Amino acid sequence: MATILITGGVRSGKSLLAETRAAALPGRPVYIATAEPGDAEMAERIAAHRARRGAEWRTVEVPLDLAGALDATDGHGPRLVDCLTLWLSNLMGAGRNWRAEAEALAATLARQQSPVILVTNEVGMGIVPANALARAFRDAAGGLNQRIAAMADEVILTVAGQPLKVKG
Amino acid sequence: MATILITGGVRSGKSLLAETRAAALPGRPVYIATAEPGDAEMAERIAAHRARRGAEWRTVEVPLDLAGALDATDGHGPRLVDCLTLWLSNLMGAGRNWRAEAEALAATLARQQSPVILVTNEVGMGIVPANALARAFRDAAGGLNQRIAAMADEVILTVAGQPLKVKG
Amino acid sequence: MATILITGGVRSGKSLLAETRAAALPGRPVYIATAEPGDAEMAERIAAHRARRGAEWRTVEVPLDLAGALDATDGHGPRLVDCLTLWLSNLMGAGRNWRAEAEALAATLARQQSPVILVTNEVGMGIVPANALARAFRDAAGGLNQRIAAMADEVILTVAGQPLKVKG
Repeated sequence: MATILITGGVRSGKSLLAETRAAALPGRPVYIATAEPGDAEMAERIAAHRARRGAEWRTVEVPLDLAGALDATDGHGPRLVDCLTLWLSNLMGAGRNWRAEAEALAATLARQQSPVILVTNEVGMGIVPANALARAFRDAAGGLNQRIAAMADEVILTVAGQPLKVKG
Repeated sequence: MATILITGGVRSGKSLLAETRAAALPGRPVYIATAEPGDAEMAERIAAHRARRGAEWRTVEVPLDLAGALDATDGHGPRLVDCLTLWLSNLMGAGRNWRAEAEALAATLARQQSPVILVTNEVGMGIVPANALARAFRDAAGGLNQRIAAMADEVILTVAGQPLKVKG
Repeated sequence: MATILITGGVRSGKSLLAETRAAALPGRPVYIATAEPGDAEMAERIAAHRARRGAEWRTVEVPLDLAGALDATDGHGPRLVDCLTLWLSNLMGAGRNWRAEAEALAATLARQQSPVILVTNEVGMGIVPANALARAFRDAAGGLNQRIAAMADEVILTVAGQPLKVKG
């Protein structure tokens, strides 16, 4: 079934668009959160998103095994993955090979019966960071986005809360 | 009347596009500048923009009370607000609540008789800044852009000086 | 003949799109590289791009005299310039006037018989850098992109590896 990738800058309306799209699909929606409420700033953002979605959503928290969570929730309703960039950060923090994980995710997405909407971030349109780790991260984020966009049925860039169709 | 939001990266042609659009509308155009020539770099940029616009433009400088300036100049010709991002920076520097100010601005825009073209900036497509204040600023900038875009009749993203229609 | 400008964030698929477009045009393609393998990270990236292109490409390395390289390779097949942002960095490092060089490049492009595809970078959609040199560089990069886009027949923004038509 359909794979939709929604990308955009920070606070550009990606999550809200993804929620709206998911809620319009049949079945009880599942929110697959890759964030870990590690600090106060992130915990606050997670709580605000959860309050906005409301009780009809089921929430699954999965920092690393995204493919497993998709397979385990397939066949009932739409899944919203929020977000790929934090998942990548978790993978790199755990010393995983992100390229292999991206391939495995693409293969998992291709065999899903229920639709999947994935939120990701544009992080590569600023000045080159002085920090080598930040450069490696934005390279990986770009590579991951390309890999998933290549197999997605639809790719959308959000700008100031408005959707701009990129593919599909 | 029409509200047009023009967003884009630094030196992407936002101001020139906004001036061209404003100059094509009937009535003497008003340039509403939110910048304060606080340092040499900014003063130089302001002077260059002013020289380009020419004498037919009336200029109003307003660091904080944007809604007041719009109401005071309504009914004659187009207004160009350049730019929302500096206005936000001024608001935050003055300890104002930017969400309340964004709501008030949206309400003010909705009741204008003459068109308003607003320039803003994309600042959220780079790597996450290490600085907490910078993170708070880009979150607020994204929220402000979303709020105004939601009520605008037209939203344009400039890329390398070329307009890309996002809404309208 | 046609001038095509391809812009986008880091690892957004600019080079691959440029190579695909060039390879589809008649004649043996010429790769005009502005990068200098000054450090290990850059040398690795250059080697990976070269391996991907394959042996049918002719490669010319030219850190500064881009106009001369275009004139010298005209009349045979497509040229791919990768990338304008590194060329700008080289110009600024050598103390050259980038505005004058941008004008000269635009004039050179306008008289080419064979097509030219130029890759550049979006670097102005992040938070304002604290460093004055970084601010000057992203201003110049935006100005250069605008100048070439203004005379180009086609401008494309790549997002997650997907092309988004901006002009043409």
